[in-house]
Amino acid sequence: MQNDLVISLDGMGGDNAPQVVVEGAYLAWRKYPQAKFIIFGDENKIRSLIKKYAGLEAVMEVRHTPDRVKSEDKPSFALRNGRNSSMRLAIDAVGRGEANCVVSAGNTGALMAMAKFVLKVLPGVTRPAIATYMPTKVSGHGVVMLDLGANVEGDPKNLLEFGVLGGVFSREILKIANPRIGLLNIGSEAAKGHEMVKGASELFATAAHLPGKYIGFVEGSDINSGTVDVVVTDGFTGNVTLKVIEGTVKLIKSLFKQAFRSSWMMKVGFLLCLPGILVALPAVIKLIKRIDTRSYNGASMMGLKGLCIKSHGGTDGVGFANAIGVAADMALIKFNEKVAHELKELGIGEKGLEIKAKKTMSQA
Amino acid sequence: MQNDLVISLDGMGGDNAPQVVVEGAYLAWRKYPQAKFIIFGDENKIRSLIKKYAGLEAVMEVRHTPDRVKSEDKPSFALRNGRNSSMRLAIDAVGRGEANCVVSAGNTGALMAMAKFVLKVLPGVTRPAIATYMPTKVSGHGVVMLDLGANVEGDPKNLLEFGVLGGVFSREILKIANPRIGLLNIGSEAAKGHEMVKGASELFATAAHLPGKYIGFVEGSDINSGTVDVVVTDGFTGNVTLKVIEGTVKLIKSLFKQAFRSSWMMKVGFLLCLPGILVALPAVIKLIKRIDTRSYNGASMMGLKGLCIKSHGGTDGVGFANAIGVAADMALIKFNEKVAHELKELGIGEKGLEIKAKKTMSQA
Repeated sequence: MQNDLVISLDGMGGDNAPQVVVEGAYLAWRKYPQAKFIIFGDENKIRSLIKKYAGLEAVMEVRHTPDRVKSEDKPSFALRNGRNSSMRLAIDAVGRGEANCVVSAGNTGALMAMAKFVLKVLPGVTRPAIATYMPTKVSGHGVVMLDLGANVEGDPKNLLEFGVLGGVFSREILKIANPRIGLLNIGSEAAKGHEMVKGASELFATAAHLPGKYIGFVEGSDINSGTVDVVVTDGFTGNVTLKVIEGTVKLIKSLFKQAFRSSWMMKVGFLLCLPGILVALPAVIKLIKRIDTRSYNGASMMGLKGLCIKSHGGTDGVGFANAIGVAADMALIKFNEKVAHELKELGIGEKGLEIKAKKTMSQA
Repeated sequence: MQNDLVISLDGMGGDNAPQVVVEGAYLAWRKYPQAKFIIFGDENKIRSLIKKYAGLEAVMEVRHTPDRVKSEDKPSFALRNGRNSSMRLAIDAVGRGEANCVVSAGNTGALMAMAKFVLKVLPGVTRPAIATYMPTKVSGHGVVMLDLGANVEGDPKNLLEFGVLGGVFSREILKIANPRIGLLNIGSEAAKGHEMVKGASELFATAAHLPGKYIGFVEGSDINSGTVDVVVTDGFTGNVTLKVIEGTVKLIKSLFKQAFRSSWMMKVGFLLCLPGILVALPAVIKLIKRIDTRSYNGASMMGLKGLCIKSHGGTDGVGFANAIGVAADMALIKFNEKVAHELKELGIGEKGLEIKAKKTMSQA
């Protein structure tokens, strides 16, 4: 498996599995021709889908299982009863070293619980985190945010580790040379916020080494402003934040739709606009691509010994292919080796925290 | 002052004071003809502005002060050194009972600190909160959210009190008959979230009386969905959330502008669209009004013995008039009397918490 790229797929996770999984794999394979796939799930269904895509059969191995994790299953239930589920078997393939990474569009809580149980936490990392990347005002310049809910409580040291994980992702995957790492807070002044962010800020500011540059506190309005590359926060705030962004986008879409539906003038106006829209089409398509959530699909479960990517459950083939792309990129750049190196430089060895301070520290 | 409506104005707060303050007062006066104003600030500047608005001079008293709180002043500094500032004097007028409410577009932290110091906390309320209202997907149906940053830490009891404050606002100001009160969390299941929200949920679920109906946990994507009327959260999460909403709206605006600027096709397309836009104009204007942040201007500092409203610093006359409208509405419905009544029903007397439980409670 040294120079191979083997991607393990939960064939039954997500709203439109296995169709979306197979189509996504095909699209990803066009971009990563060296990729091979192992897909777990209903063999008959999957085989008949694979046949639709020329050449896919040769690079995709199907392993049958009738079991799947349901979207409403609690993580603890899935962990106990889902040993033969497509999700669990797909993770097991990474645990055994048969695949470089796993991608699932299934139940997030179950995926996190199973991945943590099977893959175990990376040496030096106290808690894993879920990270995603999003567009910013600056074209082609994404921002990574974590933790998005792997943990509900935490301490300053967790946030420092999240900064390392996010920094490596920004630098290696989003190709940002010296990522600006910021801590999410309610103001940019040092005195703002609760004890956890203040403590974390001191750890960041005195850290001997970081995969990027610590820029201090950032606010909710900075996340997509292009002024910060890695937004570090606790899992509670991060999860709320991510859903608030989704909710705001939905609200704006909904208001436009309502205005359109409720008014014949809007409809006539739109028809009159058609020639103009046609002229502007290439620019409109470019804009839509930039705000298309499918382009940002693929949240990483970081800090585990194996690579595990969560796709949005409701995405389509294009979106799932992007999630596979994140997994492939992380595998190809050997994400975990880079993280281990950064943690070592920072002074977090396998034994845990012995942070090399560059200044005196008053913070425990 | 019994049946009067006297509004105290910080004439020098905000980016475009005193112009915006005077214009806003004029626009508000058209809607509330019974209103009288006391405005604090640079007398010469203010008087020359007042003259521009027919009839305003008769209902607006100017009190001169050369001092003002700067936007960069720390709350503690403003509290010590701003005793003659326009902001402080405007609050003092409410403290003395000369005015029913105060409106300022100045420094939020200083306003909160001064208002808390001068007006004091309402009996039965442990901590004041900042609340705002926002549009939802449902036309004409706003949502109120609090705390937005008056506190950085808190406990379950604070959140319960915030629910009472927000519930009264939703029912009395937004005219929602039986407001649905939800606690912001990272999932809707009872087991989700940290100890504070779980404890608060138990307090809400067992409370003998609420100005509305407790509907359990809500997520970030529910805030503007129209499925919840009062979103209760701690000041840290609330502040981040509010700024994330602002940031997301800005991001979308910016992406549209960029697409437009960077492409001649978009410009030509837009020109070709003009007849269509003209036909759709009334519907477009209605849409713009619904998403216009000015329509939602005016954050309330709730839980104080006097009414204090914060306007956005960068708003215009229309926005400032809306903030005055919130203050006027809260004064006219006697917001604090309603809150006191609700707290008493709930069992929170002047002595503090003795919550009447309707079920057995295992939570302290």
